[in-house]
Amino acid sequence: MSVTFSYPTSVYVVRCCSMIENNDQHKQQMNSGIKVNGSYRSPVKVDSLSLAGEASSAATLGHVVSVIETGQRQNIPTKKQLVDPNRQGLIVEGGVGYRQTVVIRSYEVGPDKTATLETILNLLQETALNHVWMSGLLGDGFGATHGMIRNNLIWVVSRMQVLVDYYPIWGEVVKIETWVGASGKNGMRRDWLIRSQASGLIFARATSTWVMMNRKTRRLSKMPEEVRKEIAPWFIEKHAIMEDAYEKIAKLDKEAKYINSDLKPKRSDLDMNNHVNNVKYLRWMLETIPDQVLESHQLSGITLEYRRECGSSDIVQSLCEPEEDEIVNDIGKQDYSTGIMNGFSMASEIIKGNGILACLEQNPIKFTHLLQLKGEKQNEEIVRGRTTWKRKLGPIPFSP
Amino acid sequence: MSVTFSYPTSVYVVRCCSMIENNDQHKQQMNSGIKVNGSYRSPVKVDSLSLAGEASSAATLGHVVSVIETGQRQNIPTKKQLVDPNRQGLIVEGGVGYRQTVVIRSYEVGPDKTATLETILNLLQETALNHVWMSGLLGDGFGATHGMIRNNLIWVVSRMQVLVDYYPIWGEVVKIETWVGASGKNGMRRDWLIRSQASGLIFARATSTWVMMNRKTRRLSKMPEEVRKEIAPWFIEKHAIMEDAYEKIAKLDKEAKYINSDLKPKRSDLDMNNHVNNVKYLRWMLETIPDQVLESHQLSGITLEYRRECGSSDIVQSLCEPEEDEIVNDIGKQDYSTGIMNGFSMASEIIKGNGILACLEQNPIKFTHLLQLKGEKQNEEIVRGRTTWKRKLGPIPFSP
Repeated sequence: MSVTFSYPTSVYVVRCCSMIENNDQHKQQMNSGIKVNGSYRSPVKVDSLSLAGEASSAATLGHVVSVIETGQRQNIPTKKQLVDPNRQGLIVEGGVGYRQTVVIRSYEVGPDKTATLETILNLLQETALNHVWMSGLLGDGFGATHGMIRNNLIWVVSRMQVLVDYYPIWGEVVKIETWVGASGKNGMRRDWLIRSQASGLIFARATSTWVMMNRKTRRLSKMPEEVRKEIAPWFIEKHAIMEDAYEKIAKLDKEAKYINSDLKPKRSDLDMNNHVNNVKYLRWMLETIPDQVLESHQLSGITLEYRRECGSSDIVQSLCEPEEDEIVNDIGKQDYSTGIMNGFSMASEIIKGNGILACLEQNPIKFTHLLQLKGEKQNEEIVRGRTTWKRKLGPIPFSP
Repeated sequence: MSVTFSYPTSVYVVRCCSMIENNDQHKQQMNSGIKVNGSYRSPVKVDSLSLAGEASSAATLGHVVSVIETGQRQNIPTKKQLVDPNRQGLIVEGGVGYRQTVVIRSYEVGPDKTATLETILNLLQETALNHVWMSGLLGDGFGATHGMIRNNLIWVVSRMQVLVDYYPIWGEVVKIETWVGASGKNGMRRDWLIRSQASGLIFARATSTWVMMNRKTRRLSKMPEEVRKEIAPWFIEKHAIMEDAYEKIAKLDKEAKYINSDLKPKRSDLDMNNHVNNVKYLRWMLETIPDQVLESHQLSGITLEYRRECGSSDIVQSLCEPEEDEIVNDIGKQDYSTGIMNGFSMASEIIKGNGILACLEQNPIKFTHLLQLKGEKQNEEIVRGRTTWKRKLGPIPFSP
């Protein structure tokens, strides 16, 4: 089985450390009060990674930007920084985590004035990169350590999961915290927590898994010892989402209930890597969800399993299958029979006044998704997804 | 001639002041060192406004959000604030202007790592709203003063112009300044400057024109005296763009060279008002521009004249006409004959090494645009536009 894996479409890049030696004393100092994953296992065969994709397309990292001039304007630090006043970020967790204050902007919310999941995905990417930035090791801008650059390795994201309990609203101040940990022997995990600044309430949690790929051969790589020494001191044993929540996503085929075909990326959908960005993936997935669900429900969770990247000339198909079709149909009938048009308030009234729907509240609706490329011989998977939807509720608890 | 005017699609909302009386002494104190437009002219007939559109669709401002609860989470100030530490904003210009520090985020840049014009439009909207926010008068969230609310008036944008000399890059820190001024007898102007924090260099300038509309009748309104008293103390006589640069945009018809039809807004294209957002307008316009221009040129200016809003069920057509067709064709030939593939560096090399193209650099390419709705009897204009394109250049001057 081929173990090549394509470059991720989005720069959920993660990383690193500026310490050459894995000095336990130093590490303990940095991670005071936090259990550090300090055990080094011997490298394993890459085939044991359960993350292998099929593709090996020609993604490049090259960009025509003057590095010196860019460095001046970006003001890239060459040493680890503890505070970034411009981004309102600071190093936390005893020196290895990162926390940033963010205000939800007017154009980051949808018609219901709450931040969209797109916004949340964007902010996760942004804070991950800023964490790397603060580490003082930003080289190519995509998160590779010095050791990785020497070994011609890049990070690729294999899996991402986001759970949203409450969507922040326009103008709300949130604190986003992110950190990294070990994932198996050759991978890395990056987690996030988004909290209300005012109440401390957790709005959203996220986790992602990363592996290394050789930039030239496009094959997955084990983690070289020199890279392990750079990265491991930054690992902490803390999980934003319990791992037992993990379940593999089934592969859909042409029998899927909802299919949007001939989707074409536009110029504005491309990110710094000239790949279709993550937000566009999300849009393609969500555009297959029936309107009645979008009106009465809100997205409470998403899991994405990345298989290969999508370039500007690709033609994409978005497949979607409800996991429990009967419930979705029932909800559709309920909504329309009670004349629900403005989901938010009506849903909360129904819930308050009608015990019948209470059980549905406990049973979120789930959809399985697949984005694929039309291949000459066979279709190629870009990303599998699962979305979970809960009934829209009234205002969230507030206790400043 | 009907003087109704539709609600703007985007919340480029502007405003205001918390002073009930137009107290000259107080005003002078607030505007120390700034020439204040303090002359009140008598109201004129609304027909004299040159901003009349045709549409009168049923836009609503209603949203099902608990105001109290939202207010708590947004922490909306009830009095004028001078500093907003979370947004890194502060009141400047002697008490009437607003300046905010913004770092260009990783997802706000395109493949060339510079901020997109979409990002710039978003940041203009955001800083305008934050300016209003700081004024302490935020009522419905869309910028109407207390006097306007009493008179059932809302702001509608009629024109917007943005000139970009340099696009900020990923990670760059910029300062965005915005202020308001008088526009004729019944209108208001809002201007912006975007500067490099490091060098002070002006990256972009923008101006916009606003008028008042009755929320129920959807007709343009003169400015009531009580509203004038609220607003005028905030006006300053300072222009980001010289007014003589103004030229009216011709209306395109079905003879236009490039036409994209059957454009349908998607759920994710809707803003807080349930209207298609400004960024989507921009995308629809830019998607008609030939690839060869997009590769070798960058957008240096855009003017938008708003005619009516676009709702979620509308079907849109995007028309585009180059102003000087021969030049565009010439440039296309030049580019391909020199094998230009990665516009940025090649263009700068061509310019450095080849004097032939230098004259083209002085003559930017212009396109005229029109977004329109397919009407039953006739097509209805949504927005006219003009875009100006300059050859891509090398790094910008940097002098910290």
